Amino acid sequence: MFVPELIRKKRDGGRLSQGEIEYLIEGYVKGDIPDYQMSAFLMAVYFRGMSYEETTALTLAMARSGEVVDLSAVDGVKVDKHSSGGIADTTTLVLIPLAASAGIKVAKMAGRGLGYTGGTIDKLESIKGFRTALTKEEFVNQVRSIGAAITEQSERLVPADKMLYSLRDVTATVESIPLIASSIMSKKLAGGADRILLDVKFGRGAFMKTYSDALELAKTMVAIGRVAGKEVVAYVTSMDQPLGLAIGNSLEVMEAAEVLKGRGHKDLKELCLEFAAEMALMAGIEKEPEKARRVMEENIENGKALEKFKEIIRAQGGDADVLEDYSKLPQAPFTRSLVAEEDCYIKDIDGLKLGLCSVRLGAGREKKGDDIDHSVGILLGGKAGDYLRKGQVYATVYASSRDKLAYGAKMVRESIAFSPTPVEKNKLVYARVTQEDLK
Amino acid sequence: MFVPELIRKKRDGGRLSQGEIEYLIEGYVKGDIPDYQMSAFLMAVYFRGMSYEETTALTLAMARSGEVVDLSAVDGVKVDKHSSGGIADTTTLVLIPLAASAGIKVAKMAGRGLGYTGGTIDKLESIKGFRTALTKEEFVNQVRSIGAAITEQSERLVPADKMLYSLRDVTATVESIPLIASSIMSKKLAGGADRILLDVKFGRGAFMKTYSDALELAKTMVAIGRVAGKEVVAYVTSMDQPLGLAIGNSLEVMEAAEVLKGRGHKDLKELCLEFAAEMALMAGIEKEPEKARRVMEENIENGKALEKFKEIIRAQGGDADVLEDYSKLPQAPFTRSLVAEEDCYIKDIDGLKLGLCSVRLGAGREKKGDDIDHSVGILLGGKAGDYLRKGQVYATVYASSRDKLAYGAKMVRESIAFSPTPVEKNKLVYARVTQEDLK
Repeated sequence: MFVPELIRKKRDGGRLSQGEIEYLIEGYVKGDIPDYQMSAFLMAVYFRGMSYEETTALTLAMARSGEVVDLSAVDGVKVDKHSSGGIADTTTLVLIPLAASAGIKVAKMAGRGLGYTGGTIDKLESIKGFRTALTKEEFVNQVRSIGAAITEQSERLVPADKMLYSLRDVTATVESIPLIASSIMSKKLAGGADRILLDVKFGRGAFMKTYSDALELAKTMVAIGRVAGKEVVAYVTSMDQPLGLAIGNSLEVMEAAEVLKGRGHKDLKELCLEFAAEMALMAGIEKEPEKARRVMEENIENGKALEKFKEIIRAQGGDADVLEDYSKLPQAPFTRSLVAEEDCYIKDIDGLKLGLCSVRLGAGREKKGDDIDHSVGILLGGKAGDYLRKGQVYATVYASSRDKLAYGAKMVRESIAFSPTPVEKNKLVYARVTQEDLK
Repeated sequence: MFVPELIRKKRDGGRLSQGEIEYLIEGYVKGDIPDYQMSAFLMAVYFRGMSYEETTALTLAMARSGEVVDLSAVDGVKVDKHSSGGIADTTTLVLIPLAASAGIKVAKMAGRGLGYTGGTIDKLESIKGFRTALTKEEFVNQVRSIGAAITEQSERLVPADKMLYSLRDVTATVESIPLIASSIMSKKLAGGADRILLDVKFGRGAFMKTYSDALELAKTMVAIGRVAGKEVVAYVTSMDQPLGLAIGNSLEVMEAAEVLKGRGHKDLKELCLEFAAEMALMAGIEKEPEKARRVMEENIENGKALEKFKEIIRAQGGDADVLEDYSKLPQAPFTRSLVAEEDCYIKDIDGLKLGLCSVRLGAGREKKGDDIDHSVGILLGGKAGDYLRKGQVYATVYASSRDKLAYGAKMVRESIAFSPTPVEKNKLVYARVTQEDLK
């Protein structure tokens, strides 16, 4: 095969065969195909797109490029959950112990924050002693013994994705649905789970800005799962305003604990319950949606879910007391609370602006390899539609310096709008895509 | 400036400023911008195009990337002529002596064959002793002393074009009008001529397949000339069938000599006269098109043009006797003539097929750096619309082996169609674009 011909074929709107796509990916990973041909190909894909068949072939070729996790030693149906990335999206931290408390086997490989979206591994590292780099044996053994383990994605998992992502990042070829879908799904497939629950977010604070793009991404990933022989269910959810109330690593651990204690903002709690119930159905542990949901609500009420979280933290060397005594989490030296100047409703919260602000405060990375500050961030007092009395705190900024505190307070003020009259609450779940829907 | 942002801007259909384009080209030539970013940018240009302003900025940035020829030592208006490449296109070989015989100063930097199209330098190297690599001083001195010189384009001329062309060649980004226009025009601008005559070919045997693409390329190059302060006239001419009758290096030298002797096929002769007259007008040597044309016809009839060709050949160390005794040109060991099986008209000649056949015979290069065989090729007995008597030769194949001869004969037979009834002759010149036309 002649690489320029394959580029030309895609450039001219043709469809590449499975063999042609494998040739490109294998050649690229081996170093036979140079970056400059791959980047031209990626740009052609940006403009021409890819069919579901092509995207699946790409995903499978990528998934095979490195180590593939073998979870066969763990009994039962293993369910993975992935979010396309959002702000104040603490669902994974809640879901892992909640699902595990109901008997679902959760072998979770998680990532670090990317841009203005948080990452589960960063959040967990707020907990003193918590080990996020487990060996393969530790990982599998822990899932077998306590039903859940969380580890940083192995460096050897899907090297093709690392190479392609680095290249896309510097060649303006990130925003392509087939490339995003194959990047996510190749890691999920290599991660070894049997079933995959996806949360595809759209809106200001998400990578996908529109509902139609998010729906297309969801459908593409469900279609990949179908061909790859893995059941995939994808939700399309709103990420216009932050999902929960906490933005920043230790603040989000605290919020996850709150939800597991039956508190926390109802949007976040609602989505966690919905996803946990879905996972129970996918795992075959429950048959009835209502029953699945009830089990999850009960495991929050009776404290089993919170207890499971402590068990996971202890198993990975962390201090589980942080869930009861939040002062044991990293504390920011400077805080400022912003209060409502009169009785009002929160009209709108710009999630993107708050996400960027939290990165600047130090909660995320401006560039790869930057250190992060686990203590800083923003804690909201409510979401759009919520009522505030005069003098009520609507946001607290946690910062590492007075300058950053002033900056953060200014940004938060600019990100939140108020209304004297009631405001309709935002819808959260816009679509649920299953393999049935693609037929 | 941040390169991914510039790529993104073009990808999203934006227009780059002159400064942004200069930044890209200068950075690329210096090695600060890697191939993989440039190839993604080029693919974005392929899809989004470029405005005349952007294309001009690109062309000027490229032209400035290396050596620029200084022809100020040569008196008078220097006119350059360039063809976008064709088959049996011997116009340059005819035009240089013809124009020079009328007093036009011709400082011609020429190239080698590219793909299935011939190159003036390759053709001239059929002439024993002919030196195609003149020093700068030799080149300028010869134009001053005898009015014309032909040299291979300097390696130091427009390095940006060499780099970009190599990259485009392997990333399927060749077929883009702004990129083709900037590649041609950057070399013409760096070549130092005051006025530029362009022959943009379209059809099966040309890089541009359609009239509308060729017209757009012509307009783009005239627009570049306008901004760059150089008068440019562009013809759009047909290259469906070969222009002359000879395809192959020494065969084309022979055909050029025939035209300069008042013979040769009338299509080729007609185009040479039209271009030579246009050059006389551009140079300001003649004011009236009819008069200019008459001067050129006279210089063929009175032998001045042929004599000028001999003078150029001798000045560059070549054996001018080849123009009188064609047996002194390289001779192919095997030849086969194909004859009409009955009285008929030539209906169609597939120029592309014959061009590819001549490359395979050895007249061109399958890849860069290949040796070529100056003796081989195809000599036609007529063009579409011409009448053939039974037994008349309609093509002769010149080959280096019996196998190649058989292959060539088969290909030629497949490339030519006949008709028992008269066939309309093809139109040659489809458009003439001047700077006036763009207003």
